[in-house]
Amino acid sequence: MANSGSGDSMTVRIVRVLETFSADRTVQTAAQIGRRAGLASSTAHRIVDDLVDAGLLERDDEHRVRLGLRLWELALRGSRALRLRQAALPHMELVQTRVREHTQLAVLEQEEALFLERLSHPEAGANITRVAGRLPLHASSSGLVLLAFASHELRERVLAAPLRRLAPETVTDAAALRRLLAEVRRSGYVVAAGSIEQVSTGVAVPIRDAGEVVAALSVVLPRGADPEVAIAALRSAARGIEAVLASGR
Amino acid sequence: MANSGSGDSMTVRIVRVLETFSADRTVQTAAQIGRRAGLASSTAHRIVDDLVDAGLLERDDEHRVRLGLRLWELALRGSRALRLRQAALPHMELVQTRVREHTQLAVLEQEEALFLERLSHPEAGANITRVAGRLPLHASSSGLVLLAFASHELRERVLAAPLRRLAPETVTDAAALRRLLAEVRRSGYVVAAGSIEQVSTGVAVPIRDAGEVVAALSVVLPRGADPEVAIAALRSAARGIEAVLASGR
Repeated sequence: MANSGSGDSMTVRIVRVLETFSADRTVQTAAQIGRRAGLASSTAHRIVDDLVDAGLLERDDEHRVRLGLRLWELALRGSRALRLRQAALPHMELVQTRVREHTQLAVLEQEEALFLERLSHPEAGANITRVAGRLPLHASSSGLVLLAFASHELRERVLAAPLRRLAPETVTDAAALRRLLAEVRRSGYVVAAGSIEQVSTGVAVPIRDAGEVVAALSVVLPRGADPEVAIAALRSAARGIEAVLASGR
Repeated sequence: MANSGSGDSMTVRIVRVLETFSADRTVQTAAQIGRRAGLASSTAHRIVDDLVDAGLLERDDEHRVRLGLRLWELALRGSRALRLRQAALPHMELVQTRVREHTQLAVLEQEEALFLERLSHPEAGANITRVAGRLPLHASSSGLVLLAFASHELRERVLAAPLRRLAPETVTDAAALRRLLAEVRRSGYVVAAGSIEQVSTGVAVPIRDAGEVVAALSVVLPRGADPEVAIAALRSAARGIEAVLASGR
């Protein structure tokens, strides 16, 4: 019942439709969605119609569609992303007050760092991260923390795969990355200078829930800034977030 | 293809599954989901399996499922909820600094106020609102602002329907509500004392984008507090958010 002729389940087709939307592509026609999702035009139109009927997509006066508020609501209402983010937000604001740069919260998702929240000081410098955006584990400071405390299997899989160079200083040598991850596990923080953008340094610490690392909290500093204040602020915030998570269990 | 024997589209069934999750019910078995969604057990299991395969639900070691991070990511990445909320957040923090209570951002969705964001001061009083939660238009201060500036048709529909009393001071008389809404349109703000909870007063202002009211910004004050500082802080924040929205168009 859920399967069509091509073998994809309806759920997979819906996901393929939703995947065509991004921060840079918020409004599309059904025909554009079909092309981008690799679906036949008639199939794309039928799925889009269904999604509009259910409120997961919204149609404008020019018959283009965008992601619906109903989808946002259903995705957030009972999600651990929201729980984690609500626990973290007041503490992220404290980091923000002390460090006055960008402060991010990220989790591990499908072998990448997925950013759940970002606060930015009006005068802060460059920052590539976006809420609901992703970065590679081996390049971002958040990703390095998540990778350092990930399962042995996942870590070995990432170390065995090609490590893409995002900036001249991205660690792309598996042996060097392995040493760096061991150092992160020992020290409990990472300072990643120029690994994503030459002009900035990421600093990140782990956040634990029930003994397991569930997220990374990070700040982006201008390159060359002393990371000591940021490390202290992040560690203090992580302890605060961990206390909130523990109280909510 | 998208339709099953019962006439519901697969999309509708997926929505019914997602609807069973809430802030108070974050982890369920497929059998529980089936009962709560009114789906046959075999159907519920099949849809849950499909959703887990697609990453929209995640299964734990005890074979229970929860909302997946992938769903959160897809729902947010290109959404206007995120755009609005990112534009509003720094200004909500400024309100927070001045008023030191709860600050909320809400939009109109399916004839209710849907809350996109909430910041709370550690010492702030009672507050019923939750991120991704809803409140009736006629009772919450945000809802009253959204209703005051809604289309004539929607306003008349709400005024014609029974107005539920949430607290002793909820305005449930249609004529009184009509006068209140006219006053909100004239003054550009609302002070709703005890309309949701006796102990608190909601204060809200509209946020416009391209001339249309797209959201309401509100604070929750302890009952009896002078609303003047809050009104000024909200108006100043609304102007700031409107400038960000205008620059991003």
